[in-house]
Amino acid sequence: MILINGESKEHIEVSDRGLQYGDGLFETIAVKSGQAQFLNRHLQRLNAGCSRLLISPPDNKLLKNEVASLANQADRAVVKIIVTRGAGGRGYRQPDVVKPTRIVSLHPYPDYPNSYQQQGIRVRFCATRLGLNPTLAGIKHLNRLEQVLARSEWHDPTIQEGIMFDSDGYVVEGTMTNLFFVKNEVLYTASLEKAGVAGIIRSVVMEQAALHGMKIFEGRVSRDDLLSADELFVCNSVIGIWPVRQIEHQQFLVGPLTRQFQHWLEHFEDKGVQNEQ
Amino acid sequence: MILINGESKEHIEVSDRGLQYGDGLFETIAVKSGQAQFLNRHLQRLNAGCSRLLISPPDNKLLKNEVASLANQADRAVVKIIVTRGAGGRGYRQPDVVKPTRIVSLHPYPDYPNSYQQQGIRVRFCATRLGLNPTLAGIKHLNRLEQVLARSEWHDPTIQEGIMFDSDGYVVEGTMTNLFFVKNEVLYTASLEKAGVAGIIRSVVMEQAALHGMKIFEGRVSRDDLLSADELFVCNSVIGIWPVRQIEHQQFLVGPLTRQFQHWLEHFEDKGVQNEQ
Repeated sequence: MILINGESKEHIEVSDRGLQYGDGLFETIAVKSGQAQFLNRHLQRLNAGCSRLLISPPDNKLLKNEVASLANQADRAVVKIIVTRGAGGRGYRQPDVVKPTRIVSLHPYPDYPNSYQQQGIRVRFCATRLGLNPTLAGIKHLNRLEQVLARSEWHDPTIQEGIMFDSDGYVVEGTMTNLFFVKNEVLYTASLEKAGVAGIIRSVVMEQAALHGMKIFEGRVSRDDLLSADELFVCNSVIGIWPVRQIEHQQFLVGPLTRQFQHWLEHFEDKGVQNEQ
Repeated sequence: MILINGESKEHIEVSDRGLQYGDGLFETIAVKSGQAQFLNRHLQRLNAGCSRLLISPPDNKLLKNEVASLANQADRAVVKIIVTRGAGGRGYRQPDVVKPTRIVSLHPYPDYPNSYQQQGIRVRFCATRLGLNPTLAGIKHLNRLEQVLARSEWHDPTIQEGIMFDSDGYVVEGTMTNLFFVKNEVLYTASLEKAGVAGIIRSVVMEQAALHGMKIFEGRVSRDDLLSADELFVCNSVIGIWPVRQIEHQQFLVGPLTRQFQHWLEHFEDKGVQNEQ
């Protein structure tokens, strides 16, 4: 099921700048019991991203209704929103009249085994680097070749995620997740001022950490920092929080703070959905 | 007129990875007297780009026929080829079976005044930087938000191009062109190992310079290098070569070597087309 500018369709114009230049952004939203999770936060990030890319954001009431109409059809699912600068011309200059394209689509929930959340996952280091670009950093935009190439580096189904470095060699995030680690009860994560996607669950994790008085370090993180961590986890809107039990050949225990964050996230989700009504 | 995988259509599936992730590449080809210019070079670059992005390149004979069938319809026009990794799933991992999408479209030739080629153009410096990424550098891929944002920085119609720096502050290229300058009879251009698009006309210019015994410097180029040049020009497949007569407030003369390259390019084009028959 796909809604394009409110109409049920499965195709867009070839001239859409989303295809021509990756000129747009997206949100990937988990659906539980027919309800879109963290919808207000997703829309807030979408609006902020549109503002940075100079695209008029879609009417949020309209978008909420469209998301709800798809989410209602499913118990457990994923709703994806794409907003592009719309159709227009050949050339990077935006057309004089921009009519953004709004795409809302419903997808099956990926069938990840429960063990990923409970016992943790194996991850690897990717060779593909993230370029540094403050203008685009943090935005969930449609220019995702770096992630596609990083994800193409491995085929081993026992490895669930790849960790990406920036072009200066610092750790940024997973191909589809943000990355946290704990060392001496301090929570560490990479700053996303020059590369990376500012994830919704990342923001929830950091808020919960602050709320519970944890020390947080958000800055430059090295490979060695990561490998000397007490515990690690990755997160995104669809998977929630997955502990990391192995990076390359090094093993990690699933730690108490990772469990705490999983608990806080579950608890928070319920409140979040109520707040969004 | 648009051919999608050989069929006349104007729409693609929303699930196409070209839209979802900018997961593909393109070529922009000038048509003169119904003939696609430098077609072999364009296909060679397309194949090389497909290889680096791990996309099976389209059958080149087929593609040549499709390009010719559109080019034949026009005297002066532009043909654009887009190749994407095709439709497939939600997630960066490529689907197990990849069926690339091949799009060939015909566009009007942009109505640039002759003065751009004859008297030269005004250019500005862009604030939007190009991120460094050796994995993607040189490829004419579909992740073009940097160029779109750079082009959105100015609306003054008397400025025809913007010069972009990389995240380290070195000059790379124009938003839609490659950039050359001449100083003491040496030809300078930025190395494209970490950022930028390896243009077809750029390759022709460098070959012609080598053929005629000119010294060529391809490496790190600074803003000051540029501003102290004897002559400058930008180039791409559609415009050919445009002299630069002004950068910001600084004026330049259209130099003899720029005229020489324009002459060589015109001469070379004719031969190029014959070789491609």
